[in-house]
Amino acid sequence: MNRKFLFAKTVIQKAGIFIKEQMQHDFLIEEKADETDLVTSLDKQCQAMMIEAIRDAYPDDHFLAEEDDIRHLISKGNVWVLDPIDGTVNFIAQGDHFAIMMAYYEEGVGQFGLILDVMRGILYAGGGQFDVYANDTRLEPYQQRDFKRCLVGVNAQMYLENTAGIRDFTALALGVRIYGGAGISMTQVMSGKLLAYFSNIAPWDYAAAAIMGEKLGYSLLTVNGEKPDFKTRQQVMFVPTKALGVIQSLVH
Amino acid sequence: MNRKFLFAKTVIQKAGIFIKEQMQHDFLIEEKADETDLVTSLDKQCQAMMIEAIRDAYPDDHFLAEEDDIRHLISKGNVWVLDPIDGTVNFIAQGDHFAIMMAYYEEGVGQFGLILDVMRGILYAGGGQFDVYANDTRLEPYQQRDFKRCLVGVNAQMYLENTAGIRDFTALALGVRIYGGAGISMTQVMSGKLLAYFSNIAPWDYAAAAIMGEKLGYSLLTVNGEKPDFKTRQQVMFVPTKALGVIQSLVH
Repeated sequence: MNRKFLFAKTVIQKAGIFIKEQMQHDFLIEEKADETDLVTSLDKQCQAMMIEAIRDAYPDDHFLAEEDDIRHLISKGNVWVLDPIDGTVNFIAQGDHFAIMMAYYEEGVGQFGLILDVMRGILYAGGGQFDVYANDTRLEPYQQRDFKRCLVGVNAQMYLENTAGIRDFTALALGVRIYGGAGISMTQVMSGKLLAYFSNIAPWDYAAAAIMGEKLGYSLLTVNGEKPDFKTRQQVMFVPTKALGVIQSLVH
Repeated sequence: MNRKFLFAKTVIQKAGIFIKEQMQHDFLIEEKADETDLVTSLDKQCQAMMIEAIRDAYPDDHFLAEEDDIRHLISKGNVWVLDPIDGTVNFIAQGDHFAIMMAYYEEGVGQFGLILDVMRGILYAGGGQFDVYANDTRLEPYQQRDFKRCLVGVNAQMYLENTAGIRDFTALALGVRIYGGAGISMTQVMSGKLLAYFSNIAPWDYAAAAIMGEKLGYSLLTVNGEKPDFKTRQQVMFVPTKALGVIQSLVH
């Protein structure tokens, strides 16, 4: 597993270099479900490159990936969950605040996750048998904090509509932040800069953080407190496991 | 003026080093107007240090500063507008995403502004007779963009309540972001990562960006389209001057 983890790090770093180079040039932007659901030609090229590298090294492994409807069941065999550019809206509008994400599962059990904050050059990696690092800094597990000294990351629409009562919960905190991009937001939770994160996201958006978070005392659950299905887009929360009681008294 | 501008850069960089050192140790947190309006002992110490340095060099200059009710009229003489820690909530909850800000006015006319993103080590400085730089990179003036490919920075409360119609305007864009901290948010506007920014803020929160922004094609106005008063907290917008027509058809 150690070799596979090191291999994954080289794949994600190469993908990061590819994106940083290619974003200097023109690329194609297309709409998916609606005018704010965007994909670029770089998302697709980057994903294809990552899959090719993994297939070369591990020809029997499977994929659950954002682009091109690659949807292997998470529970069957060795599965790589890939998001070539997470936070595509930030990527397009800002050229910043986006991430590349990888997660590796065996028979439905998370082995390690990786999130690369491309423009900051910070790789968050670990989970399973591995401690979680942000580059060379080992991340500390969640420590109980006064909610009134904490900020909560939210999805704009869910905040506006008080979906599942999340605004009631954020009222216990010092305020909310909307960064856009699940990957970047969840790195802020893992590094203690946000208390929790709520959004409406897909398996490739939450898989890596779910594995790393578990190691650090965070739970990735639907707003109803269930395990996410690793199939559809769901309203999920990434929250300190120790705070689940309080959170679930307000969020459901 | 060139000497004064260089002097201001040394003052803000020293203040940044002071904050980075001191934040490693315990510091006092106090509530001002309410439980989310916070100030730390470092805000006060840092401001006192900056004022002392400026007084030593320019004994006849005046101050309009956030802490300790230092409120010289912007229109009279040489006035330094200081915010020792902008984004105090981020500073306390995240140890990140906060800024130090300085602006220098003569008889009410902005001469230069400075915003130091302390944790990223990026100094935004310029305005008046000086081009605006982010460290060694000269910032480009605003260029007309498709709103549907842009993000807008907002204050959470104003967004929630659609204050002055700002949510109607943000509906023209790709989405909203809430970063907290006027300084950090307005650096994102000046570097083209946000189209515009709306918040309810005080003179020391907007003075530096107002001066630099003018040089880059942005206007700092109240949501009613007036010059801010440099006295009270007001609902203001920091927006591309070329887009003022469209914005004012929705925001007022």
